[in-house]
Amino acid sequence: MKKLRIGLPKGSLEKMSLELFERAGWLIRRAERTYIPSINDEELEGMFIRTQEIPVYVEKGMLDVGLAGNDWIVERGVRVRRVKELLYSKQGLSKVRWVLAVPVDSPVKKVKDLEGGRIATELVKVTKNYLKKREVRAEVEFSWGSTEAKPPRLVDAIVELTETGASLKANNLRVIDTILESTTWLIANNLSWDDAWKREKIKNLAILLEGAINGYGKVGLKMNVSQENLKKLLDLLPALKRPTISKLSQEGWWAVEIIVEELLARELIPRIKKIGGEGIVEYPLNKVVY
Amino acid sequence: MKKLRIGLPKGSLEKMSLELFERAGWLIRRAERTYIPSINDEELEGMFIRTQEIPVYVEKGMLDVGLAGNDWIVERGVRVRRVKELLYSKQGLSKVRWVLAVPVDSPVKKVKDLEGGRIATELVKVTKNYLKKREVRAEVEFSWGSTEAKPPRLVDAIVELTETGASLKANNLRVIDTILESTTWLIANNLSWDDAWKREKIKNLAILLEGAINGYGKVGLKMNVSQENLKKLLDLLPALKRPTISKLSQEGWWAVEIIVEELLARELIPRIKKIGGEGIVEYPLNKVVY
Amino acid sequence: MKKLRIGLPKGSLEKMSLELFERAGWLIRRAERTYIPSINDEELEGMFIRTQEIPVYVEKGMLDVGLAGNDWIVERGVRVRRVKELLYSKQGLSKVRWVLAVPVDSPVKKVKDLEGGRIATELVKVTKNYLKKREVRAEVEFSWGSTEAKPPRLVDAIVELTETGASLKANNLRVIDTILESTTWLIANNLSWDDAWKREKIKNLAILLEGAINGYGKVGLKMNVSQENLKKLLDLLPALKRPTISKLSQEGWWAVEIIVEELLARELIPRIKKIGGEGIVEYPLNKVVY
Amino acid sequence: MKKLRIGLPKGSLEKMSLELFERAGWLIRRAERTYIPSINDEELEGMFIRTQEIPVYVEKGMLDVGLAGNDWIVERGVRVRRVKELLYSKQGLSKVRWVLAVPVDSPVKKVKDLEGGRIATELVKVTKNYLKKREVRAEVEFSWGSTEAKPPRLVDAIVELTETGASLKANNLRVIDTILESTTWLIANNLSWDDAWKREKIKNLAILLEGAINGYGKVGLKMNVSQENLKKLLDLLPALKRPTISKLSQEGWWAVEIIVEELLARELIPRIKKIGGEGIVEYPLNKVVY
Amino acid sequence: MKKLRIGLPKGSLEKMSLELFERAGWLIRRAERTYIPSINDEELEGMFIRTQEIPVYVEKGMLDVGLAGNDWIVERGVRVRRVKELLYSKQGLSKVRWVLAVPVDSPVKKVKDLEGGRIATELVKVTKNYLKKREVRAEVEFSWGSTEAKPPRLVDAIVELTETGASLKANNLRVIDTILESTTWLIANNLSWDDAWKREKIKNLAILLEGAINGYGKVGLKMNVSQENLKKLLDLLPALKRPTISKLSQEGWWAVEIIVEELLARELIPRIKKIGGEGIVEYPLNKVVY
Amino acid sequence: MKKLRIGLPKGSLEKMSLELFERAGWLIRRAERTYIPSINDEELEGMFIRTQEIPVYVEKGMLDVGLAGNDWIVERGVRVRRVKELLYSKQGLSKVRWVLAVPVDSPVKKVKDLEGGRIATELVKVTKNYLKKREVRAEVEFSWGSTEAKPPRLVDAIVELTETGASLKANNLRVIDTILESTTWLIANNLSWDDAWKREKIKNLAILLEGAINGYGKVGLKMNVSQENLKKLLDLLPALKRPTISKLSQEGWWAVEIIVEELLARELIPRIKKIGGEGIVEYPLNKVVY
Repeated sequence: MKKLRIGLPKGSLEKMSLELFERAGWLIRRAERTYIPSINDEELEGMFIRTQEIPVYVEKGMLDVGLAGNDWIVERGVRVRRVKELLYSKQGLSKVRWVLAVPVDSPVKKVKDLEGGRIATELVKVTKNYLKKREVRAEVEFSWGSTEAKPPRLVDAIVELTETGASLKANNLRVIDTILESTTWLIANNLSWDDAWKREKIKNLAILLEGAINGYGKVGLKMNVSQENLKKLLDLLPALKRPTISKLSQEGWWAVEIIVEELLARELIPRIKKIGGEGIVEYPLNKVVY
Repeated sequence: MKKLRIGLPKGSLEKMSLELFERAGWLIRRAERTYIPSINDEELEGMFIRTQEIPVYVEKGMLDVGLAGNDWIVERGVRVRRVKELLYSKQGLSKVRWVLAVPVDSPVKKVKDLEGGRIATELVKVTKNYLKKREVRAEVEFSWGSTEAKPPRLVDAIVELTETGASLKANNLRVIDTILESTTWLIANNLSWDDAWKREKIKNLAILLEGAINGYGKVGLKMNVSQENLKKLLDLLPALKRPTISKLSQEGWWAVEIIVEELLARELIPRIKKIGGEGIVEYPLNKVVY
Repeated sequence: MKKLRIGLPKGSLEKMSLELFERAGWLIRRAERTYIPSINDEELEGMFIRTQEIPVYVEKGMLDVGLAGNDWIVERGVRVRRVKELLYSKQGLSKVRWVLAVPVDSPVKKVKDLEGGRIATELVKVTKNYLKKREVRAEVEFSWGSTEAKPPRLVDAIVELTETGASLKANNLRVIDTILESTTWLIANNLSWDDAWKREKIKNLAILLEGAINGYGKVGLKMNVSQENLKKLLDLLPALKRPTISKLSQEGWWAVEIIVEELLARELIPRIKKIGGEGIVEYPLNKVVY
Repeated sequence: MKKLRIGLPKGSLEKMSLELFERAGWLIRRAERTYIPSINDEELEGMFIRTQEIPVYVEKGMLDVGLAGNDWIVERGVRVRRVKELLYSKQGLSKVRWVLAVPVDSPVKKVKDLEGGRIATELVKVTKNYLKKREVRAEVEFSWGSTEAKPPRLVDAIVELTETGASLKANNLRVIDTILESTTWLIANNLSWDDAWKREKIKNLAILLEGAINGYGKVGLKMNVSQENLKKLLDLLPALKRPTISKLSQEGWWAVEIIVEELLARELIPRIKKIGGEGIVEYPLNKVVY
Repeated sequence: MKKLRIGLPKGSLEKMSLELFERAGWLIRRAERTYIPSINDEELEGMFIRTQEIPVYVEKGMLDVGLAGNDWIVERGVRVRRVKELLYSKQGLSKVRWVLAVPVDSPVKKVKDLEGGRIATELVKVTKNYLKKREVRAEVEFSWGSTEAKPPRLVDAIVELTETGASLKANNLRVIDTILESTTWLIANNLSWDDAWKREKIKNLAILLEGAINGYGKVGLKMNVSQENLKKLLDLLPALKRPTISKLSQEGWWAVEIIVEELLARELIPRIKKIGGEGIVEYPLNKVVY
Repeated sequence: MKKLRIGLPKGSLEKMSLELFERAGWLIRRAERTYIPSINDEELEGMFIRTQEIPVYVEKGMLDVGLAGNDWIVERGVRVRRVKELLYSKQGLSKVRWVLAVPVDSPVKKVKDLEGGRIATELVKVTKNYLKKREVRAEVEFSWGSTEAKPPRLVDAIVELTETGASLKANNLRVIDTILESTTWLIANNLSWDDAWKREKIKNLAILLEGAINGYGKVGLKMNVSQENLKKLLDLLPALKRPTISKLSQEGWWAVEIIVEELLARELIPRIKKIGGEGIVEYPLNKVVY
């Protein structure tokens, strides 16, 4: 039997990744202390690896495909096929940022002020490139973690990951620049991508993972509307997504159904009601594939 | 930017209120130890306040709108606009009751027997009015809590909130009367209500909160039925809620869809099956707006 | 008022059974330390009893109906009506197995090698019958639990329940045969079944419990398709389950809806997309009744 | 190396037994799902077994020694050496009782009233003997658990274990007699006891386990007292336990030290202070061996 | 049998109070939802009441004795006997403070600046007295809780309890004055105090509770020292607490024992070692009664 | 005020380190998300840093002193003063080992077999030195974690930390050599050590931390013995630790007190009892300083 070897991120992206796969249709279970999970798909062979290392093992071909943050794809400088961007991170369906930060009361106001200074970060290569482009000479040292603790005693500035900014605030740090934004990517080894069976499998994975992400933030809306109000309703609904309209048995009445972002539903529902929509129902979705 | 200031109940109603808002479309997050939450709506500015105090601050106009139990709206004697009754309480989608209770083995059988006695309660004004109407003279003292502990040693009777009666039973108390039933209300300051933008915003809030409450206890039912059974099926379905009926491509077959209370679905499904309904499917809902 | 007395399994099947009833439409709540639950149905009177004892009390008529594993129905040798098989067990929607197991390094390779040996099990009668059929004489002793601990010091082999095999592996045991597979059954007392009102109630229970089990592993799929691709789509969809097809207002377009196993959805969605399906949506279900 | 094989009670006595062994000096660790623990004593080989089965396996010699409740030693009718009574049970340092109980509103007032009735219990043999002595004929059936749930629907009375009575009360049962009191015993196989090395090891175990039980409920008290008050102090202290009295460097002063029950310390300390004791200090103990 | 009725604080002081009583020798157990605990002392009858109410019920004689914060003794203006100050609060062995606080960016710098303003607090009477003494006229309103949330929108300032200041900081508040410090007191009803039996019982309670508080923060130190170093050692030890000195069997050696604050032990041990102390041992204490 | 800057290990050693400091007399509290703790000693200024980085920052003088594993002191190749070895690790009072491991079914039996292979480890430098000494050429790559997952797919062998071996076993790995044993050390910057005030402070820290470690595994034993048995008792007690012997007031009796390892107490107590020791008491200790 053919197998696709997939690298799954252990650590901060792990929980959200497993939820996403479950919604996409794959149940992945990892026993305590082990890294080779069981997956309810005989064609998939998974391995949990630190997100920092997935790009390298995909590039070398030990893994056919993997999930990795854009940050580490760039940092490790690998040549892999970027199959699909998946907009999620540790905290939810959003990007993360790597920021350059200094103590709140530091005299440093912009990156230029760090000339001759020392910066701690886990993302050494990206940081060096950033400084080079701005023609700032500063020492960049690898940090094993607890990076927020280091300024000002141990270093002048740090480059660190942030989602909400809470950790920076708790450590009295001030952001002076964003040096990289990052989302998660499904990446593939170039040779694996050239294999027809593997490429097909990878593309199906991409469709379903993307469908699952769509399912998180979207909802279905159904409503009935009379002939006279149908036009007004259709004008109201977002142009992009073609609604499903079907005739009801009752003469002169239509059923309209549409998929929209959850936040948009909050706006639409009162307006639909106002123009005569009846029996408006919002229901949850698992996946949406356009 | 215009803002609507909303008072959210801290304490017993908090958890259920936040779930309700999330289902209605607003994500409200309160950091530990703080009372000003983040809300994913720039037009809403929230503040967590004890439910006892929300009516007063809404009346005074420091808050435009708030959620509060009917009990405290009455107790505090405020003049506010009651926008919408929302049938939920701490434990779920039901009313709560304030009851007059005495020890199981007390000689008191009815309120008259409390003449000259002493009653502890947090709802002092409501209790006094209740006694006055019944022409009973008894001392009513404010209780800071643990009220069930007090009879018979410290007082003769109490007026206390109960949902399931479990706490009264655990403290060997017997209910002799219900003095007030209470649900939650969306209330508004009268001047805020006169402001067109605010009234619109408040009404939309009311529509979506009510829709979310409907979504909790209702489900969608779909089924296919042949022409010959359609009439029998429609007779079976509740008259009030007009079903959505559409023609299937297969000649002589109809798809019928209806929204019903979850408990009713338990009764309907076997009967639908009996009269020839096929492929009966029950699915969950987020919101239902009539 | 007529009542149906139902025996509910306390212990390993309890949690899953309560979830199943809740999905079917009955909320069953058991206070700590008590065995008579509250149920939101005045016609049902429940009692929590060990699954080993439910068959006997149903047979004797102290209970009208009950949920019990096939294993204990057989072991207790009762005469009851088997109303409906419900494919679930402690861990989920699957069967369990009672296996004959010996230590990994035991010389015993097949059941014949146990001649003259000693076997511990909770399922004494089933085990004895199994040995008798294979003409093996071995001592079978009742085990109060911790059965996996016993070989090789205390007994030569055990007959024990297993779902995942993890506990056998942890205790270094090797399976040499499966002696019984078991699922859960809704069983009824024969006299109760002859009572028209009770039989009707039992049958409705069976329909809704089975519908709830169906709801766990299935999902709804909707998609739009043009006239030219409709035939290809219908060829793709599983033959067994008749899809619901309805005409859209847009000329030449159809809406297709189908209920499928969740795992199948994973396969279907990419193929539907490939042949021109649009706006594919997967949504969750509560119950499916054919 | 010689080994002593010890049976440890899995289930209700397990947690308390492990705490007791740890205090006595043996660290017993059981991995999840396994029954053979690691023990920091190469001469001890442990196995976790249900307390109901330990007496039998000790009698048969598969275990040299074990911890078991007196209830199951009697029920199983074994011939073993009772080495030491250890006053503890599931809940703490106290006895448990097996009681005969009926529903609160049952007409049964005393055991004689159960003539011709049916009784459920896990302790079948003890119950039958009890009835025989009182010349009451009643059917006794083995109960797999949830015994409190059974009266009055399934049986007339039960014989069940109780420590605090809370479970009986929650199920509306009334105690009409105590049929057995039970504590934990260290029991030994008779042949093992005849082996000199094993007997020595068993006796040491007994000394340290008993010392650990003493350590739970006792405390050390130290105080200084002048010559003139020494006599009064000694009169006050419990006669049984000889205090340790030593001369202080300061002329005319004595240090007195004594081990007492924790509850007694509460009484003694104020009285010691009253008669002139100074610098009274109470300190915790691990073990006390007389 | 005579009984002493004691009021125990429900809420923030509850956990610490129960720990203190347990260390003092009384095991107090409160079942969920009830307020009358079981106590292992037949002469004590407890009741859990909000700390705000204990002073009043002690004054009125419904309780003989109670534990209450000084803050509420003052606020309620009662006449009770203050038996013993017990230095503990919710967080540990320390005082709490009620502070006057305003938003960080408020123009208010000192209490005078609040002239004409509005202040929310639970401690209304104390706050009014404080303002009166300083001749500041400001409105003081009773707050039901969440007081930190109120400035600046709802009030200008608050008077609130603080132990660590974390909650004030989280709500961006700045302290401008401390209006009351508070510890816990054992208080008694005046008539109860006049009863000889009750007074004796109350005094014993006070001795043991105080002994238990001493036991938390103190440790025992023992060491051996030669004759030549004894003098130096005694000079080093705190003068106040007379050490226990006893002669060892070995000629010219002394054993010295002393009770000191745990923090002091950290300082003393290295110095004791330096001047020749040997075998220095620090051990934990339950109670210390001088 | 003078300050000593101390590096505390964040991560696996953190919990155990804080317990040790608390027992030694320093309460260290770290708020969530921050790295600069509060310490109840104005002369100490702490910072939480990854254990891998503490040696470097101590060497550079940004920290005066720190706790670090011997493994990382060696790996980072720093020049620092090793003040005191403290025998504890993540799991308790024991050493940890870095081992060379391969898959259970690998053909590799000894290090020589790894010639030309690839090894993943976090301890790159130590591993390279180890291979060099044994004249084995193999590629050593830095591992970011999840190292046990890597063989055989990603690498041939790993060098990884192990305390109990459970994680290696769960990943089917076999140890072929131990390359480094490691305990925790208190290390100091060389210049800080030359400062008299700092050296004194560091030495005191070392005394108390070592005393606290001693306190974990040791207990105090007291017993009374008659003159005639005193000699036998003293022969029994460990020669190294001089017991404290004092005369009792009762003629011909002695009190003997000694500090021993907890495991030894298990052996000693029965033997002390046998030769006539009376009133044997074992009590817990906080610290032991010789």
